[in-house]
Amino acid sequence: MADSRKNFTLSPLGGLGEIGLNCMVLECGDSMIMIDCGIMFPEDYLFGIDIVIPRFDFVLARKDKLKGIIITHGHEDHIGALPWLLPYVDAPIYSSRFTLALIESRLREHDLDRYVDLRPVEGRQRVDFGDIAVNFFRVCHSIIEGFGLGIETPTGRIVHTGDFKIDRTPLDDTNVTDLEGFAEFSAPGVQLMLSDSTNVERDGYALTEREIKQSLSDIFAKATGRILVTLFSSHIQRMQEIIDLAETYGRKVAISGRSIQNNIDLSRNLGYLRASESIFVPMDSVSNYRDDQIVLLLTGSQGEPLSSLTRLAMSEHRQMRIKEGDLVLMSSRFIPGNTRAITKVINRLYKLGAEVLYERVSGIHASGHAHREELCQMLRTVKPKFFVPVHGEYRHLVKHSRLAVECGVAKERSLILEDGQPLRLFEDNTMRLLDRITVEHIYVDGKGVGDVGSSVLKERQLLAGEGLVIVNLVIDEKSGEIALGPEITSKGFVFEQHYAHLLEDAKCIVLDIFENIPPGEIQKLKDRIRGSLRRFFRKVLDRDPVVIPVVISL
Amino acid sequence: MADSRKNFTLSPLGGLGEIGLNCMVLECGDSMIMIDCGIMFPEDYLFGIDIVIPRFDFVLARKDKLKGIIITHGHEDHIGALPWLLPYVDAPIYSSRFTLALIESRLREHDLDRYVDLRPVEGRQRVDFGDIAVNFFRVCHSIIEGFGLGIETPTGRIVHTGDFKIDRTPLDDTNVTDLEGFAEFSAPGVQLMLSDSTNVERDGYALTEREIKQSLSDIFAKATGRILVTLFSSHIQRMQEIIDLAETYGRKVAISGRSIQNNIDLSRNLGYLRASESIFVPMDSVSNYRDDQIVLLLTGSQGEPLSSLTRLAMSEHRQMRIKEGDLVLMSSRFIPGNTRAITKVINRLYKLGAEVLYERVSGIHASGHAHREELCQMLRTVKPKFFVPVHGEYRHLVKHSRLAVECGVAKERSLILEDGQPLRLFEDNTMRLLDRITVEHIYVDGKGVGDVGSSVLKERQLLAGEGLVIVNLVIDEKSGEIALGPEITSKGFVFEQHYAHLLEDAKCIVLDIFENIPPGEIQKLKDRIRGSLRRFFRKVLDRDPVVIPVVISL
Repeated sequence: MADSRKNFTLSPLGGLGEIGLNCMVLECGDSMIMIDCGIMFPEDYLFGIDIVIPRFDFVLARKDKLKGIIITHGHEDHIGALPWLLPYVDAPIYSSRFTLALIESRLREHDLDRYVDLRPVEGRQRVDFGDIAVNFFRVCHSIIEGFGLGIETPTGRIVHTGDFKIDRTPLDDTNVTDLEGFAEFSAPGVQLMLSDSTNVERDGYALTEREIKQSLSDIFAKATGRILVTLFSSHIQRMQEIIDLAETYGRKVAISGRSIQNNIDLSRNLGYLRASESIFVPMDSVSNYRDDQIVLLLTGSQGEPLSSLTRLAMSEHRQMRIKEGDLVLMSSRFIPGNTRAITKVINRLYKLGAEVLYERVSGIHASGHAHREELCQMLRTVKPKFFVPVHGEYRHLVKHSRLAVECGVAKERSLILEDGQPLRLFEDNTMRLLDRITVEHIYVDGKGVGDVGSSVLKERQLLAGEGLVIVNLVIDEKSGEIALGPEITSKGFVFEQHYAHLLEDAKCIVLDIFENIPPGEIQKLKDRIRGSLRRFFRKVLDRDPVVIPVVISL
Repeated sequence: MADSRKNFTLSPLGGLGEIGLNCMVLECGDSMIMIDCGIMFPEDYLFGIDIVIPRFDFVLARKDKLKGIIITHGHEDHIGALPWLLPYVDAPIYSSRFTLALIESRLREHDLDRYVDLRPVEGRQRVDFGDIAVNFFRVCHSIIEGFGLGIETPTGRIVHTGDFKIDRTPLDDTNVTDLEGFAEFSAPGVQLMLSDSTNVERDGYALTEREIKQSLSDIFAKATGRILVTLFSSHIQRMQEIIDLAETYGRKVAISGRSIQNNIDLSRNLGYLRASESIFVPMDSVSNYRDDQIVLLLTGSQGEPLSSLTRLAMSEHRQMRIKEGDLVLMSSRFIPGNTRAITKVINRLYKLGAEVLYERVSGIHASGHAHREELCQMLRTVKPKFFVPVHGEYRHLVKHSRLAVECGVAKERSLILEDGQPLRLFEDNTMRLLDRITVEHIYVDGKGVGDVGSSVLKERQLLAGEGLVIVNLVIDEKSGEIALGPEITSKGFVFEQHYAHLLEDAKCIVLDIFENIPPGEIQKLKDRIRGSLRRFFRKVLDRDPVVIPVVISL
């Protein structure tokens, strides 16, 4: 029996249970919108995987209803999966002008930019999608021009905070969370709030950009040598601070690294970065200035092997060398998987005589995500009936849902959803969890999407662990004798010169097996070779390589 | 011309430039001692490597001088490499009774325990090694019975702190740093101090065990369900605190995990752990008690795949299931490379309804290494003429050497040595850096020591990245025609069923190459197959597998 009550359905495809992969779908009547379309970077054990994207089948199955794709802001975990969705759907993309410029440049790399309909929106703008309308509210985040959303449905109102923090002492009036806008939108009552859970484990308030800029300013004031700065290349506001400080302290700015150069060009063209042409100097002419007249903006905040800072640390940069007196400011977070790569770079910089400041030892970076007090402030502004934490691993969701209860949400209405668990809300403020839909982490390896599954990854892990041994054997079908071999080739197993005797012993084992297997039983021969050689290598070396017998009968 | 002044020489073989691998050699006249003999755990990119040990050639070349091996405490990065040294040298090992018990059990695994001479020492004991004498002073660390060393040489005195912290409010009088002992030893003047640099980036003082125990006690007092505790299995003092709290709050203790059980047995036998037999219950009978009558001590503080906590989180433990109301205390540090594995376990525990407390959200772990104020206190106690920071990555050494200058060491005498850089000090307080000696990270993979070098690792990395493709081709030597093949086998490359067409295309490429190479030029044929297939796979899939052509001419 169909339920005739008005309702809407929220279907999370990613981001509820992991940091990254943000993607959800909202359906109401004949309208459907998608909110964000992000990637996740693979964990270390996913050998060879470049990125992870959500499974889009749910969207594709009802793509005719898709009225628009709403992107809250321009980070990869919100825009990165668009190139894998857009060839299959036909819907306009709504976001800020800056975010759309980032999307356009990403789509250009995939030759998709000419086919998409990008529609810029402003803060406080309202866009109608039939049964759904979306209001855009500015939020402060670690990238400019982010939005939170106020969504109107016939059933009730929804607030989606996007990724946000609340800067109590903003440096300018553009990078501010529009709490007033959220409050006005929420005044008639909000049925459901979705909010950023990233930093729910952190007490108090995030450092503000004003505090960061003050720390940076103190450092600039005292510095007597060159200053080298790495940061997230999308953090335009931080770049502005660096450029302003360079101006104040009479330094020129040189840039090394494609992603930073691209984003500076893009934001200057669009008017998001205020900088006179004369402040910039090319890398090649840095040596024409005194050390205290130079700031360098560099890629490499995560110790990426090919980045400018890593090349400098390895003394492999084409245009420059680190020297005694250089001051390196790593004005960004260390992403956990990258810690070892980053600390290796830091150690090498010290060895070359540089001084290095980073988050752990100085206040030169702030998270872009609200801490607990800020999350409370947002909850108390919106006062939702239902609450669903988003953008977090499971433990973050649990803790954020508890925080919502502390802030006044009824316990039974502070829900934890996971990817693939749709929620339907009705006009009478009842709810229902619908049947789970299929969600998945789809692995992208080069041009292959989803073709590298667990069996292929398992093989890569085995190969990585102990390498492989190939055994070649040609058998003369007529005589049943060995025509050639056994020959043994290995990769990533042992240094063959050292272990010639061992590989000779392995050949004897193969010959022995051959003698004891009736002619023609190739499969049995292969199985026995594989089994016996693995046992042999385990015994003598305590290693377990992949053994591939290639037996040819001619 | 030989220098006739009295002198001693310090040669660091490991630990100066990395965390782990602690090992140094001290020579004076006819005597030589080794201080610590530790391993390092391999970084992620060292596929298949089990552990890393120092290169011992320097010791072996003068092993007749070796009068003793001094072990400061029982952590792996101080004792773990002994099994790879002891078969080749004949010298007694000096350490505390507890540390020697750990060493003995480790040597037993390698069948070496019967051949070594283990000599227990007490705090304040002095041992004579000819031209060198060593005084042992108790230090407080995250393992019991650690020592710092006061070393007498004809040239002057040396203080080696070992790994230490200074607990201002000790829980008992055994786990205390013997500052008085260090002060008395230092009174006549100390020529050289070597000190633990691990936490030089952390201000103030480390949390004390008293503070930890108080946090734990508060948690025990409130807990109404089962309490599950993970910790470093060598942290006997922390285990004692847990067992004492269990006693206080009327709970029984059950143990799951071999390393914890072993260390509890060992320390109870030696009298280091006070616990009545009646406090322990077997895992199988946990269900006979009320939830608030149970504490579990579990392995798995680092999210190790086969540990008890991980099995519980995956609902794969043989004897127990996690349930709503369970409280998990992870009373240990997250080692950076393990963060993702640990957080995965935490998320799963939350999903099963448990609550999880860990260092980030509550004060239930303390570092065993001195923070800056404690380092200063030690420096001011010892007042050395020369200072060499040890036990740290390069940046830690730099910062610790600066700290020493702040604490009164002359700038030109606060030195940074790296592994392989020997330092000679003379009786007149002059110094000389000797020629570098060969040091190396030796990789242990199974039973192979040092045989897996960079070329084999490089092959493993390539195999891990994109897998491999084997091309088989048998050529009839007489006719010059193909007798069999080409056959293509892949591992870790693509899911073959999906890519049958691609592998067919690859075969055509191989046939094409074969047609265009003069008969008999096998090597050229192989090179061309490898090159062309790599280009082909890069073009169609953007992947670059290892291609192994097996061409047989019969």
